Amino acid sequence: MRQRNKPWADDFLQNNPQLIIPNPAEHKNKWQSIFGNNNPIHIEIGTGKGQFLTGMAKQYPEINFIGIELAKSIVVTAAQKVMDSELDNILLLNENAEDIHEIFAEEEIDGIYLNFSDPWPKNRHEKRRLTFHSFLKKYEDILDPSGEIIFKTDNRGLFEYSLVSFSNYGMKLEEVNLDLHAIEDPENVMTEYEEKFSAKGQVIYRCRARFVK
Amino acid sequence: MRQRNKPWADDFLQNNPQLIIPNPAEHKNKWQSIFGNNNPIHIEIGTGKGQFLTGMAKQYPEINFIGIELAKSIVVTAAQKVMDSELDNILLLNENAEDIHEIFAEEEIDGIYLNFSDPWPKNRHEKRRLTFHSFLKKYEDILDPSGEIIFKTDNRGLFEYSLVSFSNYGMKLEEVNLDLHAIEDPENVMTEYEEKFSAKGQVIYRCRARFVK
Repeated sequence: MRQRNKPWADDFLQNNPQLIIPNPAEHKNKWQSIFGNNNPIHIEIGTGKGQFLTGMAKQYPEINFIGIELAKSIVVTAAQKVMDSELDNILLLNENAEDIHEIFAEEEIDGIYLNFSDPWPKNRHEKRRLTFHSFLKKYEDILDPSGEIIFKTDNRGLFEYSLVSFSNYGMKLEEVNLDLHAIEDPENVMTEYEEKFSAKGQVIYRCRARFVK
Repeated sequence: MRQRNKPWADDFLQNNPQLIIPNPAEHKNKWQSIFGNNNPIHIEIGTGKGQFLTGMAKQYPEINFIGIELAKSIVVTAAQKVMDSELDNILLLNENAEDIHEIFAEEEIDGIYLNFSDPWPKNRHEKRRLTFHSFLKKYEDILDPSGEIIFKTDNRGLFEYSLVSFSNYGMKLEEVNLDLHAIEDPENVMTEYEEKFSAKGQVIYRCRARFVK
């Protein structure tokens, strides 16, 4: 995602620790207490500007959402969107997806969203793809056995790769949709990218997959 | 596939038992001896007019191919194509896919092709889809552990269904291709349908899947 330099981002983060949680590893296994309820927790890895996260949080008030975004200049935009929404079931983390197993305890999470993740198309960058097996291991650790990974992308290569990666890891595919917008689904919350690309006629892929424990 | 009435089809079948094998269950576990060699055997279920089968047999002379086609009026067209090709590594069966476990012994087959199978889109016809779990059980029985199912279709619903069906059966996806003709592949042998539909710009899907034994 295009990143503009935002000199005020550091200040913004420091001034909003109730929304963009610093040192999240300290809250491992205690995330529900931060939300102040016992609702399930869903995370979005690579939350971008937060349109999907806020849309989901509005649609599912009985679920707690945590958005993880590595880029500081982008997470602050998401934070502003969350503030504007006045929703209280969202938190943000300015962290690397690599570290999620440090941040969440075993089976602490009930759903994981991967939306329009960087495809890293070169073979030598395979390890960076968010559906590479080393990431799946981390998702498996933190995800409740009943939880799912819900993955959307417009990138054919990444989707093909990910289906094979899920399968080789031993995951079960619950649903595969090879043209998400072929039929209007009022429950589908769109990301910024999805809105833009599907408007251009680009096919959007989605799958839901589960670990077998 | 559109079927024309061919009153001569019965005679043709009777006169060509060396190509369209009658009573194939009698040859269970002895198919290599009919071919007169020890080459691996690949089968195509729903072989239609035989363009794929003859193309593959020409491309892979070290493999024996058996095409199975239920429609009598179509299998005779395939037979004529095989005769014209003068290839000796092809046999045809005018049989129902339901019966393949009666025709082939355990692990007797080294590859199974499903090409543009009838999608049976209605839920109540799910059992008729060639990737329904009852068919997968039969494929698993007759397929060598090293063998693959190679499935091509232009039907999005059937492909989505089949990926989930393979996964739920515990099969591993070896490859998923969501636009087979995006890159020219000189090794891809096209069926009649594939040639016609891909020329119209229709996306062709393919996957390769394996049983885990």
